[in-house]
Amino acid sequence: MIVVRTTGHLFDRQIRHPQWEADNATLQRWLKELNLGGVILLGGSAAELSLKTQQLQSWATTPLFIAADIEEGVGQRFPGATWFPPPMALSAIAKKDIILACDYAYQMGAITAQEAVATGINWLLAPVVDVNNNPDNPVINIRAFGDNPEIVSKLTTAFIKGAQQHPILTTAKHFPGHGDTVTDSHLELPTISHSDSRLTSVEIPPFQSAIAAGVDSVMTAHLLISAWDKNYPATLSPYILTQKLREELGFTGLIVTDALIMGGITKYASPAEVAVMTVEAGTDVLLMPDDPEIAIKSILQAVESGRISEARIHKSLKRIKQAKEKVENNFNASNNFNFSSQISETKGTQTVTKILKHSAQSSSNLPLKSPQNQSLRNLIITDNILNSNFLDICSPAITIPEKLGYQTQVLDSHSLDCILLNNNKTLLKIFIRGNPIRGTAGLSSKAQDIYEQLFKQEQVIGLIIYGSPYILNWFKTLITSELPWVFMYGQMPQSQAIAVQKIFNISSEVVKTTKQQNFGF
Amino acid sequence: MIVVRTTGHLFDRQIRHPQWEADNATLQRWLKELNLGGVILLGGSAAELSLKTQQLQSWATTPLFIAADIEEGVGQRFPGATWFPPPMALSAIAKKDIILACDYAYQMGAITAQEAVATGINWLLAPVVDVNNNPDNPVINIRAFGDNPEIVSKLTTAFIKGAQQHPILTTAKHFPGHGDTVTDSHLELPTISHSDSRLTSVEIPPFQSAIAAGVDSVMTAHLLISAWDKNYPATLSPYILTQKLREELGFTGLIVTDALIMGGITKYASPAEVAVMTVEAGTDVLLMPDDPEIAIKSILQAVESGRISEARIHKSLKRIKQAKEKVENNFNASNNFNFSSQISETKGTQTVTKILKHSAQSSSNLPLKSPQNQSLRNLIITDNILNSNFLDICSPAITIPEKLGYQTQVLDSHSLDCILLNNNKTLLKIFIRGNPIRGTAGLSSKAQDIYEQLFKQEQVIGLIIYGSPYILNWFKTLITSELPWVFMYGQMPQSQAIAVQKIFNISSEVVKTTKQQNFGF
Repeated sequence: MIVVRTTGHLFDRQIRHPQWEADNATLQRWLKELNLGGVILLGGSAAELSLKTQQLQSWATTPLFIAADIEEGVGQRFPGATWFPPPMALSAIAKKDIILACDYAYQMGAITAQEAVATGINWLLAPVVDVNNNPDNPVINIRAFGDNPEIVSKLTTAFIKGAQQHPILTTAKHFPGHGDTVTDSHLELPTISHSDSRLTSVEIPPFQSAIAAGVDSVMTAHLLISAWDKNYPATLSPYILTQKLREELGFTGLIVTDALIMGGITKYASPAEVAVMTVEAGTDVLLMPDDPEIAIKSILQAVESGRISEARIHKSLKRIKQAKEKVENNFNASNNFNFSSQISETKGTQTVTKILKHSAQSSSNLPLKSPQNQSLRNLIITDNILNSNFLDICSPAITIPEKLGYQTQVLDSHSLDCILLNNNKTLLKIFIRGNPIRGTAGLSSKAQDIYEQLFKQEQVIGLIIYGSPYILNWFKTLITSELPWVFMYGQMPQSQAIAVQKIFNISSEVVKTTKQQNFGF
Repeated sequence: MIVVRTTGHLFDRQIRHPQWEADNATLQRWLKELNLGGVILLGGSAAELSLKTQQLQSWATTPLFIAADIEEGVGQRFPGATWFPPPMALSAIAKKDIILACDYAYQMGAITAQEAVATGINWLLAPVVDVNNNPDNPVINIRAFGDNPEIVSKLTTAFIKGAQQHPILTTAKHFPGHGDTVTDSHLELPTISHSDSRLTSVEIPPFQSAIAAGVDSVMTAHLLISAWDKNYPATLSPYILTQKLREELGFTGLIVTDALIMGGITKYASPAEVAVMTVEAGTDVLLMPDDPEIAIKSILQAVESGRISEARIHKSLKRIKQAKEKVENNFNASNNFNFSSQISETKGTQTVTKILKHSAQSSSNLPLKSPQNQSLRNLIITDNILNSNFLDICSPAITIPEKLGYQTQVLDSHSLDCILLNNNKTLLKIFIRGNPIRGTAGLSSKAQDIYEQLFKQEQVIGLIIYGSPYILNWFKTLITSELPWVFMYGQMPQSQAIAVQKIFNISSEVVKTTKQQNFGF
């Protein structure tokens, strides 16, 4: 019943989060002695992952669940595989053409599942079925398939249907709906104070559709849903998980917790008590408990003391067994570099391009004509420059403007003051999106002040926003009708290539063949 | 006779330098139709490399040379394997204890070779045997085993002997010595105007030692050595390669060019002419010609026209065949994740720690006592923040000061002005070293001005320099006797951990268990 986190890298020296990622010796011992249910993987490339999953299965007593948070494709977390734009891009397309958007969602599910299976993942912790009806939501935001329950239901159902073309488990998350909060449950426990009727009409329908479509698991949210349970967060609430999800919604698959090391739950009760309470509430699988030995011991004690019945445990074990049987052909799927033929480079790239292009927005007066004989700046702003895997010296957002005479400057939230130090004509690029852990969804008030000043100085000659439509909306208060601008949902290099082609009106061939000065050292 | 560059990644979408890295379809065609001699790999992790080398050998008609520029360990280029500090660290140790330094050099050669073999590399493009007697050398610098010919000879011989414990080819580079230049041959053709006697007494001895130790190949330098050949760069000079290297020094192994796409040679003649001239000069293997089809065609035409004799080609082919026979057991060495047992994590990490600690320097008045109730800044300066693979959110240089209340700020050469914007008490960390392509070895004059002002403001409370002892020497003119400082040759996380332990006087256990706020998203 326990799933622990580990890295997709092979070597201990590549562990980046030692507090959550056990070293190989410990993990091997756990798999042997504790007979763990599975792992959730983060870190490493698709190729590394294909080796790591083989290694993990070879260490396991019982074939393992191998799960990953690959909501935006395997390539979102594991480079080499297909990296899709955030789901909200599909919602933007759906508002124009719901059939096309559903087709893209289906392809996104199918390609993600195919590549996951190729790399040895058998449990897809996607789709997010939350309805993001709060632009300030710091944690769901553009990870959602939109702000409209009906569209979210249709798109996530299409995603699930696509994924079902391959032997993999799917997950609807985060029950009963994490879309309307301004608190990040990775840090604190949010309270949702909506009425029962509002929950039933907005938050719940996408879960009902997912269940009807045969979703294999539902992930619980670390949220206090006061209309349903004033005392226990959903993850620990028998009323929400058993009464609502199992009985009223009739869900017979796996109930899995969100990560139990998240602040929203660790601040509520001790790790031992959380483990027991979530099983009491109806959970089958405990994701990332702080210490698997403590979690197992405390559940065992609760059974021995009669607090939890053996029958309750057996029900979960039966569901786990059924889920594993469904994907049993997938426990040794990946094999050497042959796995690479199952990474759909051509189809994946084409589908991503279509979604990016159909969801892009731009001003009417393109292209940007770079002023002659003036100093030009390509100013790139990210949240945290050390956590920006979409950017490197070879990214189109860097290389193409360099080729056109722009000087690169990359700044992040720790250096916003520097933005105003430079008087060059500036192509401003914002790479900021709602993301877990960040704590906020968009621009800080300090950042807003600085951008307002920058625009007052009339140095901004072009604007590209990568990621959040909410940030585009804020900038729309500043931009004049003459300013060339482009908005893209994706932040990855493929999205950058499209944006620079668009803003400068250059061909994809030019982007592809632009030479870099550096040799890669 | 042709070695082309490719990426260690498996997928086309991971190609970062399309002008030098062919896509898989092209590479497969070349290997089949052109029967290429081998590849040089850059990019990807050690795990990816182990898959990529298998794939490449499976595509090849004749077993391939698989080469890599892993002068500082396989981990320098391919994460997961052991990453050594730059060779000049060994020179610093040699000045105190030559026997210990030679032991480290031997271990460095042995561990590098073992891990290279494990990942499928059979040709080590190391050691650098250049004598770096010019602190402003922008390209060799700390890649050299020091500035003293005798020490360089001893250390590089030890490295070669260590490497010879494993079935791999070694390389002495860059003939006849690239240590005394202020021009980067990646960009322009440098001229060395030393006399014959100086060359014979300083530059040549390490090559003689390497040849005596049985080095398998010698790499040519793109340098004009005016005392020896006023017209042709060494790479294209029959006098230097055939007369000097083959006949006078008696070298019977492989002569390989430095990369033929480097500015130092492309600006000298056309790709077709360069290919013919280097073979005429005595080269056996052409590394990274701009286009392998053009190189092969032009050499073929030169043979047909009688400009190059068939016998000359056969001599090279014979040497290539002999070299490949030496490593033939290594063409299919890597196999699944089992290769990982040959990555010496424990021994590698221990050896690196010893070298880092023995080559570190520091002020006498450690530890740094962080002032109470004041704003603290952890200011990190790199050359190019987008090309700083030693730094991420989980690096000790970031996490430990954050834990101690310092606010991180990361700036690079494009944002030096920002350094002075902030009045907080500053722990200054410089990550700059001589590196190919950068064009300069140390601090720009603008950077020097800014650091002078920063020190005048008396905000610097501590200093850590990672990489270049020449930069330490420059800072010594600014620092007072009270300032706590540390100098480390290595820039990698392991070096950062040692430096922060030293400057704050904390245990390695604290460094290891410091929790990060982020979850790795």
